[in-house]
Amino acid sequence: MILEVAILDIKRGLEQEFEAAFAKAQIIISSMDGYASHQLQNCIEKSNRYILLVNWETLENHTVGFRGSEKYREWRELLHHFYEPLPEVEHYRAVFENI
Amino acid sequence: MILEVAILDIKRGLEQEFEAAFAKAQIIISSMDGYASHQLQNCIEKSNRYILLVNWETLENHTVGFRGSEKYREWRELLHHFYEPLPEVEHYRAVFENI
Repeated sequence: MILEVAILDIKRGLEQEFEAAFAKAQIIISSMDGYASHQLQNCIEKSNRYILLVNWETLENHTVGFRGSEKYREWRELLHHFYEPLPEVEHYRAVFENI
Repeated sequence: MILEVAILDIKRGLEQEFEAAFAKAQIIISSMDGYASHQLQNCIEKSNRYILLVNWETLENHTVGFRGSEKYREWRELLHHFYEPLPEVEHYRAVFENI
């Protein structure tokens, strides 16, 4: 399992609109091959910051399957205009879990 | 539930030693009041980067209970000398989960 991590800084004042758009966008990501689960969480210290965590079966399910898909265009159209700056997305593999 | 997020950049070459120290340190955090679960994951794009995710019942379980405890000194002694720079720790609240 691979964890996709993106810290999302949203243009100030657009947080509610972003959350509404994300409510739609998560239906897209949830339908992709290799998608396992996701969370969107809001930062307590910085209210226009979010973290998106997505579990994928493999790295390629995200980087090739999702990003190369028609659906990714819809995802971008729904979400990318809220970001400032554009987020860096990283992928992680578990070392220790829930011990 | 509160998610503690820390991106940990480890001094190059000390990754194995850090993981061994974390194996001990996680016993400390797991024993704290309000601790729910944690994960340590290693970044695929940058091999000396890790993400620590800890779920706490409340924000104060982490910021007051854990950080104010005797045990936190042991945690620091085990881990802090591996970090460069010292990590910024943030806390998040779920907006959407596993949908």
